[in-house]
Amino acid sequence: MFTMQPIGHVRSPYKDAREVPKGLGAKHEAEGVLEILPEFEIGLTDIEGFSHLYVIWVFHRSQGLELLSMPPSDDRPHGVFATRSPRRPNSIGLSVVELSRREGRELHVRGLDMLDGTPILDIKPYLSSIPPESLRRGWLAEAEARKVQ
Amino acid sequence: MFTMQPIGHVRSPYKDAREVPKGLGAKHEAEGVLEILPEFEIGLTDIEGFSHLYVIWVFHRSQGLELLSMPPSDDRPHGVFATRSPRRPNSIGLSVVELSRREGRELHVRGLDMLDGTPILDIKPYLSSIPPESLRRGWLAEAEARKVQ
Repeated sequence: MFTMQPIGHVRSPYKDAREVPKGLGAKHEAEGVLEILPEFEIGLTDIEGFSHLYVIWVFHRSQGLELLSMPPSDDRPHGVFATRSPRRPNSIGLSVVELSRREGRELHVRGLDMLDGTPILDIKPYLSSIPPESLRRGWLAEAEARKVQ
Repeated sequence: MFTMQPIGHVRSPYKDAREVPKGLGAKHEAEGVLEILPEFEIGLTDIEGFSHLYVIWVFHRSQGLELLSMPPSDDRPHGVFATRSPRRPNSIGLSVVELSRREGRELHVRGLDMLDGTPILDIKPYLSSIPPESLRRGWLAEAEARKVQ
């Protein structure tokens, strides 16, 4: 077993999971702040040079585990590791956000999909992308195709 | 505090951190297996439709914390959240791997940068990329530019 501690918290406009855009074509354009605890501020040195960040966080309101579940974007069940469902063996969330600016230990970001108060476990620089033409997106692409028909 | 449990382990050709390619231009093309525990196998349903996966894992051999450190790709120190250093407040690693095939609870992947035996905390589908022309890569781009000169 591994024990993790928050390095900070998310300040987000979303107070309830129902407010977060979900499903096919959901856009995450919400703005907010990653507020890092004072004891970790020095770890943010030079982060302002990066346009995008990975944020690793905890689904702190999620309860229970569903290994097979129906995502909001489909009417068929899929395995939890093929979805972004919060009901995972470890309640870990992952988001890519755009860094607008840093003010001390506050990172002002765009593209949030977390709730207000979400504990942050880690932040990493986003360094490179898989070219879109190399991506296959399984059931999600199939659900999108069915929706267009 | 949050407690996390392994959902499986990495089988990798790298037995020691010194063997993992690091620094500017390091290529991660190693092949290996994400071996998921039997009790979580059903959670892999439909994962084979995705070409790329995020793997969230534990730097299980990492010790200590360095909020400011010198990465292998530069001769200047940077904050831990602006690097992929293992000496983080929470010893969490994040990798993007290419899924070659699934055999039951074994995911055969390419692009590993983890050590053999690394505990896996979560797997998520890789759904979209930030366009390269939108990315700024801070100190890393500067270090690359200095190297070229």
